[in-house]
Amino acid sequence: MIKSNQMNILTKLLIISFTLLVMAWSSKAQIPLPSPEQISWQEAEIGVVFHYDLHVFDGEKYKQAKNRIVPIADYNIFNPQKLDTDQWISSAKAAGAKFAVLTVTHETGFALYQSDVNPYSLKALKWKNGQGDILANFVKSCRKYGVKPGVYVGIRWNARLGIYDFRVQGDDEFAKNRQQAYKKMCEGMVEEVTTHYGDLFMIWFDGGASDPKTYGADVLPIVEKNQPKCLFYHNAQRADFRWGGSETGTVPYPSWATFSYRSSHAANIEQVSKDDFLLLKRGDPKGTYYMPAMSDAPLRGYNGRHEWFWEPGDEAHIYPVQKLVDMYHGSVGHNSTLILGLTPGPNGLLPQADVDTLAAFGKKINELYNKPIASASGNLHKIELAVPPGKIIERIVVQEDISNGQRVEVFAIEGFKAGKWETIFTGSSIGHKYINVLPNPTAYKKIRLTIKACQGKPMIKKLAVY
Amino acid sequence: MIKSNQMNILTKLLIISFTLLVMAWSSKAQIPLPSPEQISWQEAEIGVVFHYDLHVFDGEKYKQAKNRIVPIADYNIFNPQKLDTDQWISSAKAAGAKFAVLTVTHETGFALYQSDVNPYSLKALKWKNGQGDILANFVKSCRKYGVKPGVYVGIRWNARLGIYDFRVQGDDEFAKNRQQAYKKMCEGMVEEVTTHYGDLFMIWFDGGASDPKTYGADVLPIVEKNQPKCLFYHNAQRADFRWGGSETGTVPYPSWATFSYRSSHAANIEQVSKDDFLLLKRGDPKGTYYMPAMSDAPLRGYNGRHEWFWEPGDEAHIYPVQKLVDMYHGSVGHNSTLILGLTPGPNGLLPQADVDTLAAFGKKINELYNKPIASASGNLHKIELAVPPGKIIERIVVQEDISNGQRVEVFAIEGFKAGKWETIFTGSSIGHKYINVLPNPTAYKKIRLTIKACQGKPMIKKLAVY
Repeated sequence: MIKSNQMNILTKLLIISFTLLVMAWSSKAQIPLPSPEQISWQEAEIGVVFHYDLHVFDGEKYKQAKNRIVPIADYNIFNPQKLDTDQWISSAKAAGAKFAVLTVTHETGFALYQSDVNPYSLKALKWKNGQGDILANFVKSCRKYGVKPGVYVGIRWNARLGIYDFRVQGDDEFAKNRQQAYKKMCEGMVEEVTTHYGDLFMIWFDGGASDPKTYGADVLPIVEKNQPKCLFYHNAQRADFRWGGSETGTVPYPSWATFSYRSSHAANIEQVSKDDFLLLKRGDPKGTYYMPAMSDAPLRGYNGRHEWFWEPGDEAHIYPVQKLVDMYHGSVGHNSTLILGLTPGPNGLLPQADVDTLAAFGKKINELYNKPIASASGNLHKIELAVPPGKIIERIVVQEDISNGQRVEVFAIEGFKAGKWETIFTGSSIGHKYINVLPNPTAYKKIRLTIKACQGKPMIKKLAVY
Repeated sequence: MIKSNQMNILTKLLIISFTLLVMAWSSKAQIPLPSPEQISWQEAEIGVVFHYDLHVFDGEKYKQAKNRIVPIADYNIFNPQKLDTDQWISSAKAAGAKFAVLTVTHETGFALYQSDVNPYSLKALKWKNGQGDILANFVKSCRKYGVKPGVYVGIRWNARLGIYDFRVQGDDEFAKNRQQAYKKMCEGMVEEVTTHYGDLFMIWFDGGASDPKTYGADVLPIVEKNQPKCLFYHNAQRADFRWGGSETGTVPYPSWATFSYRSSHAANIEQVSKDDFLLLKRGDPKGTYYMPAMSDAPLRGYNGRHEWFWEPGDEAHIYPVQKLVDMYHGSVGHNSTLILGLTPGPNGLLPQADVDTLAAFGKKINELYNKPIASASGNLHKIELAVPPGKIIERIVVQEDISNGQRVEVFAIEGFKAGKWETIFTGSSIGHKYINVLPNPTAYKKIRLTIKACQGKPMIKKLAVY
């Protein structure tokens, strides 16, 4: 038998324990946490997206507005005689890309695989007697080189079927039926690409997949069922990362991994488009959704051009290596994942100039970050790092262990030189990675990281100098 | 030297000769003449059209209005495992058909051949791994059985591409571009079917091909270039025969081979649709265009159904043989060509009940008309035919030699019995064939044809009794 006063004490203890438990749980729940796939995506740091579509073969300059509303006259211009996806993927890998994405459909509506729901696909071609499957080649090459494959499914536009911003033209019964048929076709394509090609790292609906309650195909349940570990980007219901608000390959500092809405921009364009998409760029430190920013840019985006697709004579517009390094610092170094757009040409190969630049970029990043001069880590508010004598520091890298969320809110980096500490940088967001490029290489003797504000305990995965 | 009065006589003779020549030429020009191909078409007397499209496989009752505005959900339902066009064509031949037409596209927009301009074709299918070509099979079977092949190209409707009565939906720039692309696609299909399959007997644009000046594909020059001997039916520019104004397989008597407009009905529907298409049925004896009437009917059009496509459970609606014989008399016997619609089923075969009926119909027509009791011919206003003693007459056939046009305007048929002539029929149009089925078989001793009015000399190819 338990006595009455014992009973009271037990009851009180139980209540206290439960309250503490709830508090602990609530505290944890306050910080949005990434999924394992989001962690992989951030740790990948660099990915590529290959844009390939019928108009690569038309010999004309690509004009997106025109391309969206002019069906291709002769789809049999598609004839990549030297197609070699090994060459594509090995080039991406040389650049340091950990994943690669292929536009299985873009704005013409043409599908780069063997579809049984979209006849406007490789099946329709004379090329390889209608038996070609570039997505299959692509995925095979990705597996060969250890690069994670992803797909880009463009369904917002379809020049052949008359789809403009998700909608068929017209508003009568015929139009309604065709809208339904189009939604079903898109769902069918997503079913195909998520079941026929093995595990996918990510699926990218450009401009989103809209809202299944209105004009959007109901794609999310298909992806969740067939590819539960696939990163989803994006529709009105879900986005595992967000667009970084520009196509410059960078985001401004700070760029938080958390966001105010559960989708990127498709479903809330008015809210996020203010001030040149500032919210998408910055993220929201109070945001309840874990959704880091993607920094995308076409490799051929330099000096007056910005081309996601191959066009003749655009080799002068490949970013120089140093610009790509700057881009890396402005994306990966700002807690964002860099995705470079690559442009296979009409012969089926990535042009040599692009291949060379990618290799040089990958080599340069490797040189810069392969081996730190010194590094430390720890779940501490203050970490001090001794720099070996005589070493000149050019860059400082800080990383949180993001598996527990982006916790640091205010931090400072100081350097010890000539007998005293001087402030190098005072910042807010760290997340997966913050890189500080010193204005001038300096012979600091010590480097000190101070976490001045943090949600819960700081978890510093790395403080390193290069 | 020729003397002056001799000169005058010569001059007068020359003037008279020239005048006579002009009169003869004018007289000839007043009667529209058929092309050799139109003569073949009328002499064929019986043809068939095979309707085959995706919805044959959908297990549902065909509803044309719905079919036109609802894209097929899954085109891979098309899977005719036992396809045998030899069986189709041998069945048509057994019915007496001299030509056979295949719907290479109908209202879904799906093409039954290997198209390089319309991806929504057999190339898209799992069936035969996308390598099937039913038009090729069809033409091969036609050649094998000595039946002339023709194609039916439906471009007025396209449920997949949103084409309704030739027009894409919408009226903005995108719609205009898509309209142009659709026209080009249709022209491309006509180029393909008129170049890849050898000589075609006829090309049938159902509901016409409209007017190239507005929404129509510019198909006539393509057909004229690639298939100069192919019968063309029809667009705003040309029709080599006209629709007979109903789908009963008959035209009323008289039905003239001449017509008031240079097209059938697509370009002048208001003018020809009055009084239940009476002008199309009757033709116009003063018409300046040679354009005989087509009498089309689906074989499965009996007793409450009227089905151009196969549907389950419709075998009860196959016309009985006697009804088909009546139809023959009401079409071929009225100077019109009979075209029967045949319906291969989802297994790829014409159902046995249809096959049996066609064979029985062919056998019956052969029995009835294989061997006349007596016959005569001649370019005369009066032809008398002796009937061998003891023979009973059931039917009388009269034919003009239409190569010189439809000349007879009024004629009478009389029979001699019990010592005197009695009028059997007084009519107007003869043309390729007029058949009189006597109300009661009669033992006439003689039959007399009298041409009472005629443009130029009557040219009676045949007067025969059966």
